[in-house]
Amino acid sequence: MKILIKDAQIIPMTKGYGAEDNYYMQGSIAVYNGRISGIGDISEDGDFDKIIDASGCVVLPGFINTHTHAAMTLFRSYADDLPLMEWLNTKIWPIEAIMSGQDIFWGTMLSILEMIKSGTTTFVDMYSFMDDVARAVEESGMRAVLARGVIGIGPNGEAALHESVNFAGNWHGKADGRITTMLAPHAPYTCPPDYLKKVMDYADQLGTGIHIHLAETLSEVAEIEKTYGKRPVELMHDIGLFERHVLGAHVVYVNEREIEILAEKKVGVAHNPQSNMKLASGIAPVTKMLEKGVSVALGTDGASSNNNLDMIEEMRSASLLQKVATMDPTSLPAYQAIEMATRNGASVLRMEKEIGQIEVGKKADLILVDFQKPHLFPRHDAAAHLVYAAQASDVKTVIIDGKVIMENRQVLTLDEERILYEAEKCAQKLVHEVKS
Amino acid sequence: MKILIKDAQIIPMTKGYGAEDNYYMQGSIAVYNGRISGIGDISEDGDFDKIIDASGCVVLPGFINTHTHAAMTLFRSYADDLPLMEWLNTKIWPIEAIMSGQDIFWGTMLSILEMIKSGTTTFVDMYSFMDDVARAVEESGMRAVLARGVIGIGPNGEAALHESVNFAGNWHGKADGRITTMLAPHAPYTCPPDYLKKVMDYADQLGTGIHIHLAETLSEVAEIEKTYGKRPVELMHDIGLFERHVLGAHVVYVNEREIEILAEKKVGVAHNPQSNMKLASGIAPVTKMLEKGVSVALGTDGASSNNNLDMIEEMRSASLLQKVATMDPTSLPAYQAIEMATRNGASVLRMEKEIGQIEVGKKADLILVDFQKPHLFPRHDAAAHLVYAAQASDVKTVIIDGKVIMENRQVLTLDEERILYEAEKCAQKLVHEVKS
Repeated sequence: MKILIKDAQIIPMTKGYGAEDNYYMQGSIAVYNGRISGIGDISEDGDFDKIIDASGCVVLPGFINTHTHAAMTLFRSYADDLPLMEWLNTKIWPIEAIMSGQDIFWGTMLSILEMIKSGTTTFVDMYSFMDDVARAVEESGMRAVLARGVIGIGPNGEAALHESVNFAGNWHGKADGRITTMLAPHAPYTCPPDYLKKVMDYADQLGTGIHIHLAETLSEVAEIEKTYGKRPVELMHDIGLFERHVLGAHVVYVNEREIEILAEKKVGVAHNPQSNMKLASGIAPVTKMLEKGVSVALGTDGASSNNNLDMIEEMRSASLLQKVATMDPTSLPAYQAIEMATRNGASVLRMEKEIGQIEVGKKADLILVDFQKPHLFPRHDAAAHLVYAAQASDVKTVIIDGKVIMENRQVLTLDEERILYEAEKCAQKLVHEVKS
Repeated sequence: MKILIKDAQIIPMTKGYGAEDNYYMQGSIAVYNGRISGIGDISEDGDFDKIIDASGCVVLPGFINTHTHAAMTLFRSYADDLPLMEWLNTKIWPIEAIMSGQDIFWGTMLSILEMIKSGTTTFVDMYSFMDDVARAVEESGMRAVLARGVIGIGPNGEAALHESVNFAGNWHGKADGRITTMLAPHAPYTCPPDYLKKVMDYADQLGTGIHIHLAETLSEVAEIEKTYGKRPVELMHDIGLFERHVLGAHVVYVNEREIEILAEKKVGVAHNPQSNMKLASGIAPVTKMLEKGVSVALGTDGASSNNNLDMIEEMRSASLLQKVATMDPTSLPAYQAIEMATRNGASVLRMEKEIGQIEVGKKADLILVDFQKPHLFPRHDAAAHLVYAAQASDVKTVIIDGKVIMENRQVLTLDEERILYEAEKCAQKLVHEVKS
């Protein structure tokens, strides 16, 4: 399949924030065999299977959602505005406990449908029944980094760990390379050091990265300090976790010294501003982390604490929240927020050679955003429009791995009606079961 | 015109937050002669001119945007991520100074187009060339509360005040009653007490309300304290402003005593969370104000500090920001955020007998939000979906003053293409002129 995207305003994201020259370019993009094969002034006489007119659109790398629990879309707006422990104990955990692989499959399908329609081309998932998640990813054409989440303190710790290791081994590189895998110990307070050491050994054997919730809440910090006499990031550092490729989700509570550790050890951070706000977890020191050289990417977290999987909104919330938290309107400018949602996402996954930028040779994961909308007029600055004014529904066309997955808002790989129907059915069944 | 909206899930907003019984109802709404004439189980055999099938939609009162500067859409993404005084001095004020009535007209048209498409049915404007703004409102079918903004410290203070009084007198009740007017002294730091006393006299003569920026930034508080030895809200109270109908925009910096004053004097507050975040103004104590009985509504502020006029986003930001600011996930729950965007909006405008709720006899300002979208599945809770997951583009149909203004996302009263073209032209001309 050879595709030409013509007459686009392109934000290739190849320039780092603060570059002296222009972030934008005008031109065409050629896609061949899953990868970007040309950028610039390209003739239409190139034997293309498909030519996409991108006039009026802005083209950029697809968004990389670096932390979610996809199937939790089934619990979107099921439990809101509750105290954290009540939310978990009386709502989320009981209903999660009765989910089947079938539920996970349709919940994940719903999330993938939503993510494609909002311009996400890669997501990073930590959940259970991961074979079903992988199957959904395979069918949809999506790119994903998957891990079975494991908890060390429960009776199921060892079994889950083996399952997660098998999953990571079985699915890595599958779906034409669109699926890669990680290990995912849930968090420092649910996975004691002994357990984490086993995880590290497996990660070393498999050559895989580790995705973990880290320093998300004050109560986590208090609990870890009480048990181990140190803070979560210090503890993880001391047991050697950071000698591996680690993706820390949330990372709200880090002091200067811990930020230095994250930078030095190249620990990637998945910042989840809307989840941190909605659950009242706190405000992560994103500006400070970025200044110190930590690679901070963006994630939505699950739809039960967000309540959508919209990366444009996540960019906006990240930027606005940093501005008010630092009382400085220059904090986290628009372009830097887009970096977090694209190239930083690739970087925390150590996939920066493959995705996250529009560059010849990279995977063709691209989105066209339609700027022909009242809320995107006039045309002063494309990056500011994207971050401060755009909506998910402005994403018009999505290309993943060189294939057109959505065109003019029609998702070509999925049966939207069926997914809505099946997801609704699973959700209602679960609500009914959990009550009885 | 007699309209039937049938088979809707209705959130009438007639119940206050905390009511014991259900906030929702299922049924139909009849509209006759600009007003809601029936709610419930209504037969289709009622000689209706139009029947709107609302199945799959949620119907609620249109949003009331209680603070904006509509024509500033022309400066959307023109100047972002700058220190406040640099933003004002080098960007916003120079370009505002050269705007013509024609620019204001097309900027306002663009804003109205965007507001209709995002479910706003009433907006409250403070700007200049208000005859042109009123003309745009008249043509569009929108409802608006308009005021010419005046500044007392400049050479133009008296002339602007007379203009604002004439405008308020001339346009009040025009456009079939869709336009009402206020006076709008800009802020305590730009309108000294002597000048405000003149404004108050005129307000008393006209029987009109006063719309004023109030306690928006720390520097305003510092300046007023230095000059008058008291804080902005105290000062306004002491000079007698609050003996009138006052709508205070922003109201970020208020202490316990000042909150009591606002409650006691029934001063309405237009909270603008996204503008307060983007300009790093601060976080208003909304939860505390609501607890103390202050009527707090929502506004977007102008598009140059937001950068859109999307009230769904404003509800979401209001709620998420309060949760993280108070470190309490139960703060500002979804339904309360919808109250702010609807019935509280009516209340701060003292129009609660006319708009803001779906009730027989009230003006028919209604919106249908299409829930048949992946990001609004499954159907656990409509209020949480609206506030935490919906997008502006989910607004499907808009009725204002009993007339269908938008149907299936087509705005029937406006020429969308022409507005985008003219607004772009005005914006580019202004940018060109201001540089030369």
